[in-house]
Amino acid sequence: MSVEMRTPIPVKEAIESVIQVVKHKEPFTLSVEESLNYILAEDVQATYDIPRFNKSPYDGFAINSQDSQGATGDNRIAFKVVDHIGAGTPSNVKLKNGEAVRIMTGAPIPDGADAVVMFEQTVENEHGFTIRKSFEQGENISFKGEECREQDIVLDKGQQINSGVIAVLATFGYQHVKVFQKPTVAIIATGSELVGPKDPLEPGKIRNSNGPMIEALCRDINIETTTYEIQEDNLQGCIDIVKKAMMQHDIVITTGGVSVGDFDYLPKVYEAIDAEVLFNKVQMRPGSVTTVAYKDNHILFGLSGNPSACYSGFHLFTKPAIQKMMAAQEIYPVIIEAILNEDFKKANPFTRFIRAKISFSNDGVYAAPSGFNKSNAVVAIVKSNGMIILPSGTRGYAEGDKVKVLLTDHQSYERALNL
Amino acid sequence: MSVEMRTPIPVKEAIESVIQVVKHKEPFTLSVEESLNYILAEDVQATYDIPRFNKSPYDGFAINSQDSQGATGDNRIAFKVVDHIGAGTPSNVKLKNGEAVRIMTGAPIPDGADAVVMFEQTVENEHGFTIRKSFEQGENISFKGEECREQDIVLDKGQQINSGVIAVLATFGYQHVKVFQKPTVAIIATGSELVGPKDPLEPGKIRNSNGPMIEALCRDINIETTTYEIQEDNLQGCIDIVKKAMMQHDIVITTGGVSVGDFDYLPKVYEAIDAEVLFNKVQMRPGSVTTVAYKDNHILFGLSGNPSACYSGFHLFTKPAIQKMMAAQEIYPVIIEAILNEDFKKANPFTRFIRAKISFSNDGVYAAPSGFNKSNAVVAIVKSNGMIILPSGTRGYAEGDKVKVLLTDHQSYERALNL
Repeated sequence: MSVEMRTPIPVKEAIESVIQVVKHKEPFTLSVEESLNYILAEDVQATYDIPRFNKSPYDGFAINSQDSQGATGDNRIAFKVVDHIGAGTPSNVKLKNGEAVRIMTGAPIPDGADAVVMFEQTVENEHGFTIRKSFEQGENISFKGEECREQDIVLDKGQQINSGVIAVLATFGYQHVKVFQKPTVAIIATGSELVGPKDPLEPGKIRNSNGPMIEALCRDINIETTTYEIQEDNLQGCIDIVKKAMMQHDIVITTGGVSVGDFDYLPKVYEAIDAEVLFNKVQMRPGSVTTVAYKDNHILFGLSGNPSACYSGFHLFTKPAIQKMMAAQEIYPVIIEAILNEDFKKANPFTRFIRAKISFSNDGVYAAPSGFNKSNAVVAIVKSNGMIILPSGTRGYAEGDKVKVLLTDHQSYERALNL
Repeated sequence: MSVEMRTPIPVKEAIESVIQVVKHKEPFTLSVEESLNYILAEDVQATYDIPRFNKSPYDGFAINSQDSQGATGDNRIAFKVVDHIGAGTPSNVKLKNGEAVRIMTGAPIPDGADAVVMFEQTVENEHGFTIRKSFEQGENISFKGEECREQDIVLDKGQQINSGVIAVLATFGYQHVKVFQKPTVAIIATGSELVGPKDPLEPGKIRNSNGPMIEALCRDINIETTTYEIQEDNLQGCIDIVKKAMMQHDIVITTGGVSVGDFDYLPKVYEAIDAEVLFNKVQMRPGSVTTVAYKDNHILFGLSGNPSACYSGFHLFTKPAIQKMMAAQEIYPVIIEAILNEDFKKANPFTRFIRAKISFSNDGVYAAPSGFNKSNAVVAIVKSNGMIILPSGTRGYAEGDKVKVLLTDHQSYERALNL
């Protein structure tokens, strides 16, 4: 048996090759209540102006500004209050000279009024109030349509439905919305060493942790998963289960079996099902053997069986693909600069991703490895909310150095990641 | 009628006053599958060492390092392969001199072996392989317990259950876990101007958007909500509904009715139910009249009826309180530095929070207001993933200035926010 030679490609190129083949899913219509986190498949128009009518942004008195001209501290001008309205109740009054309407925040400006005097700017008396300054036309008024006009596009196709979108849809009375379907994900843990949560732990065995971890990673981004039975290292069994999973899901994530070991059957599975392997070696540590294959709009992520490598592979490749399939615009991991909190002396022959705790403080952003840093580490993932990125060809990082860090709970528009 | 005078307190002090009164809820036990995002109410111990046994981190051959001493390019040492194991299958062989076991990643190191030779380091022949360098004891071995030992505390009480925690719990075979209950939230939109999504829009009316927005904000952090009927500005009705909501929920969020207008009944509601008002005026724009009150472990958030102010109030006060009640350690908003992408000329008499789009790029972090910047703006929330913070007493910010920004989808340990 000889060792298969693979050509490692740069991380950035690997990510782009995944993004390039992935297509978004078809749109469908669902109720606004169920739409949170989906991506809009249509532009949404304003069904009326916002504000819907000229309204008062303060509690005070609506006046005609002309009546206020000439008011000074020595020449206070008096107004008679002829009506009293709160939000939701238009006044039936049309102001005459010297008249005012007591008006609350959000209430429509009455006919004949063109300015609002705030309570603090008045001295009240029995029939009304006096003021000591003149007001301009339009002073203290929120004008009809000043935020947007009827028929304006207020939500763009491609926008993720967040709390603000929900507020806008509610504002305009929309009850249904057209969104892109989300991909569904199949999870298959492979490896004869793996047992389930309740199975006895025979010698040489470990419990499957990658499967539950990936379920959780998907749930974090509101993606449904189906977990298949753990697969022993058995070629025909793996082919059958991957085929079955592909028929039922857009994305099939396997863990383990992607290296060049004698029982690493995933490369043979891709061959057997005639999937195009986009790459099977990436210039990164851990997870250099991470493999992505593609067939008929289905994408197969062959993630490492080592938990830290599996975790990194998910964030670098699977999550952006999921985002693209659900038609999101922000599909790439967010990378920011941080100050290293610890020395990291090792050489980095490939780009190194270190599970890290990123802390945000008044002094700046800091990053420290979050625990034991090996491909097979699992506990180190717990305290990580990001990954330190050390470029290939570097070594000897010291506390205080500036480094790039990837935030695992953000996605970005930015394509040009220097990975 | 006279205007009630309120004393505005700094934002930071307001946040701290909320955090101070809030207590976490009681723990309970639930299945690991349901536990994502809850906070651990107990330390969790390793039930075995990780790695569980000495294992091979590579595909190659397990040897006794002593047999390799003296190997060079000119003096290659030969090994005979006597067994072949994959992960999950311990070898029954005990190595004798000059023997090796072909071993795959993750498989247990056989008896008598103390080093692993990677495939790339060998030349294979009919009965085995030769090597050209000597190996040290322990070379290329992942040692039993090198990540953690049995009975080590691997998860700390207070840790949020993320994908890494799920992986650790799965690794150790835990099927149930003790976590803190999450608070439940009641949402009550108040204001005679508000109508529901299907109601006709009479003059002076607008549709309730704050209620659905807050539901979505809570769902984003996996908190269940109950939405009550929209309340007209009616004192007794408001008292009754708030009382009812308090009996059923830990947190009651109202929108509207917190200012000093004639129909702003929330101050009177707090009085009527004998709740302690923590503050009713904050040195911030928008949302300066945001009010928080407290009674018998129930907390009442009187958020503004203006969408942008409501949104800001939720992120500044409600979200940290929810995090604390569910016993999270990371309860505060994350604040980082960004470069302003646009001029912002207005004066900032109070600390100003501007709904903003924060962009992460290779050049750095940029922030730009995400739309029309008024308290009652709603569309501007859509594109915001943060808020620009302009301190009180400042004015005349220009494009290129460094500013603090709050990331609305992160929480932090950091207490000392310079707000």
